[in-house]
Amino acid sequence: MRLSRYFLPVTKETPADAEVISHKLMLRAGLVRQTAAGIYAWLPLGLRVLKKIEQIVREEQDRAGAVELLMPTLQSADLWRESGRYDAYGPEMLRIEDRQGRDLLYGPTNEEMITALFRDGAKSYRDLPRMLYHIQWKFRDETRPRFGVMRGREFLMKDAYSFDLDEAAGRISYNKQFVAYLRTFARMGLRAIPMQADTGPIGGDLSHEFIILAPSGESEVFFHKNWEEARSVEDYNVATDDTEALQTFVDSMTAEYAATDEKRDEAREAEMGDDLLRSRGVEVGHIFFFGDKYSKAMGLRVSGNDGSMITPVMGSYGVGVSRLAGAIIEASHDDDGIVWPEAVAPYKVGLINMRADDEACVAAADDLYARLEAAGVEVLYDDRDERGGAKFATMDVIGLPWQLIVGPRGLKNGVVELKNRASGEREELSAEAALEKLA
Amino acid sequence: MRLSRYFLPVTKETPADAEVISHKLMLRAGLVRQTAAGIYAWLPLGLRVLKKIEQIVREEQDRAGAVELLMPTLQSADLWRESGRYDAYGPEMLRIEDRQGRDLLYGPTNEEMITALFRDGAKSYRDLPRMLYHIQWKFRDETRPRFGVMRGREFLMKDAYSFDLDEAAGRISYNKQFVAYLRTFARMGLRAIPMQADTGPIGGDLSHEFIILAPSGESEVFFHKNWEEARSVEDYNVATDDTEALQTFVDSMTAEYAATDEKRDEAREAEMGDDLLRSRGVEVGHIFFFGDKYSKAMGLRVSGNDGSMITPVMGSYGVGVSRLAGAIIEASHDDDGIVWPEAVAPYKVGLINMRADDEACVAAADDLYARLEAAGVEVLYDDRDERGGAKFATMDVIGLPWQLIVGPRGLKNGVVELKNRASGEREELSAEAALEKLA
Repeated sequence: MRLSRYFLPVTKETPADAEVISHKLMLRAGLVRQTAAGIYAWLPLGLRVLKKIEQIVREEQDRAGAVELLMPTLQSADLWRESGRYDAYGPEMLRIEDRQGRDLLYGPTNEEMITALFRDGAKSYRDLPRMLYHIQWKFRDETRPRFGVMRGREFLMKDAYSFDLDEAAGRISYNKQFVAYLRTFARMGLRAIPMQADTGPIGGDLSHEFIILAPSGESEVFFHKNWEEARSVEDYNVATDDTEALQTFVDSMTAEYAATDEKRDEAREAEMGDDLLRSRGVEVGHIFFFGDKYSKAMGLRVSGNDGSMITPVMGSYGVGVSRLAGAIIEASHDDDGIVWPEAVAPYKVGLINMRADDEACVAAADDLYARLEAAGVEVLYDDRDERGGAKFATMDVIGLPWQLIVGPRGLKNGVVELKNRASGEREELSAEAALEKLA
Repeated sequence: MRLSRYFLPVTKETPADAEVISHKLMLRAGLVRQTAAGIYAWLPLGLRVLKKIEQIVREEQDRAGAVELLMPTLQSADLWRESGRYDAYGPEMLRIEDRQGRDLLYGPTNEEMITALFRDGAKSYRDLPRMLYHIQWKFRDETRPRFGVMRGREFLMKDAYSFDLDEAAGRISYNKQFVAYLRTFARMGLRAIPMQADTGPIGGDLSHEFIILAPSGESEVFFHKNWEEARSVEDYNVATDDTEALQTFVDSMTAEYAATDEKRDEAREAEMGDDLLRSRGVEVGHIFFFGDKYSKAMGLRVSGNDGSMITPVMGSYGVGVSRLAGAIIEASHDDDGIVWPEAVAPYKVGLINMRADDEACVAAADDLYARLEAAGVEVLYDDRDERGGAKFATMDVIGLPWQLIVGPRGLKNGVVELKNRASGEREELSAEAALEKLA
């Protein structure tokens, strides 16, 4: 993409209400703009990040055996009256009346709707187990939306739901999602720690939050120092169809102490001594097993092998997709701007032509651009007639993993410059060598 | 995907309010379920169709030079007060009050918001021309939602917006979108006729609707019989950066008579005699050029080359993405069910194992499934323990382009059966030959 045809409004100033670094950087880098309190438009560069995050989430859900569908944003209040949550849910639920006077609401979550859809479609024990998920915009009317997309009101969420014939099978689905979550966050370059959690308005007695450490986190968390070790997706390569291996793996992942403020175990902490660390944390995922809470209330039943009727057990599994864009920046930035992990970077390479008024530079940069595109490398090409300093600052703040710089002096020596955004390392090399390295 | 792990609730009966064939078939084929009046959940098979349609729309927008972003579903009423449309827009706009008593609305379109975003980000003449688009859920509170997703209340729409320095440039953007629309619909196997149209609440004086012919269409349309000729995307391969060729092409496409009910030219029709045809039509796209209507009202200005301030002119360009799923079925079905054009089919191949209790059949079908997947062919595998007749009926109603049938008799002779859904042609051939044909 040529910057001369793009829409990338980078800015130097940020509004006073941008308290946390990710919020500031998302505004400065032209990723998002607030259009109403806690409601954001995703500008072109931000949308690319959002889609990369979404795609990683999708791939790991598919790998876990979940099937994607798409439920609407608006729901009928009647559905929530069936479960009893319409009155129980507080003022965070955005309630709407349509022109016919019917009560609607903007879905904050979808347990009721998926239960109704599954009730309509599943008839017998052979239709289970199933996991279904969607990635859709939700709304929660926070009193005080802040931290940019990390605590917005309209936000993109992946929510999956499992349906099983009994509790043991339900636990297997839960474990599959548990692993999918570890893999999902690891692929984004995040270390997310699973912590026992309260179930809140979703209900149930088994629940984990996945929390990444960041000074701007909304809650305090306590964990064993072993969680500080770097881990990659390779560490989470357990085969999810081996039930026993899966349980053993999940047990090993939950053995090491990690707890949110509400779930602390003081006796255990006292024994840990220096092994106990504390930090602030940002919740990026939350999973629940809640048995027959919704299936029973809403009359979801399937016929069993022997003709009896079975009430399935369910779990639900949420990932804050739009929130993750902010969380990743919290975990990966420096004084100059964002430092995107390659897996979620909006483009892999930022190509800079230092002199848009120099024919040789234009020809060399145009050629590199065409060849990178032809090689399938995602490249953002700053072909504008601007000063080099401004171009560097823009590239640094938007944080693409590689900067490829074409300037008149280098060209005379037959070289271009390649800069690694994360390490800051610079290297002069031929255009050919640069292409080979990036392709 | 194995059907034994999928969620595909096909049905024989459809509710009485499903009047048109596409609505009936979308319910029967398990593509969608209504969750509230005019609001639909897209089940897994339906979502795949929706995504294919969306992707074709996206590719043609990108080809036209439009840049994708994503605006939120909810908008501030204040934005619409700036343009004066908050009061002017009728009861189709879903108005919402949040917990703080602020007025929001569920966006029925985005002229105001994109104008505000562009006003915030574009400063000089060098920031134009630009086309920006998004694909997002919209809401229009129709009094009488009907025809399934063809006239739903919550619907997915692609809306693009162009910003140009003067009317001549604005016309070029309009022409680029005009061509993108012809290409978009042709790629989906649809013949969409561009017709001069009223501009309605969007405003402006240049506008075309793109209409496909279908007996269930909401309006009557009148057109020259030449429009009945089959056309493919190859007929629309005009280079959009050659301004003159572009205008000549658009002129040629609008020379042949085609008008909606409101825009009929009786004198011209009288001269046409037998060349004049009439039909019912479904609007699948609508494009507008409306000059400075929004930029002026909302104070969007950029600095010109000479330091003067310029008020850009704008156009907007909508495609009914979710509506298209219904429109395509209206145009492509038979007595047995849907007949998907390959470009939007949820899967290319339906693989049927006739005997899930026969080891040889299971082995052969499993092997074909694995090899089709390995070859990157999208395949839905009916591996369930059901009667062959039910499997055939399911495959016919969901309308995948190819059915590959593995049965005990054929296997004895070393053959499988391949059926073309559209033509009904059947062929016996070796598994190898079938793979080669489908890959």
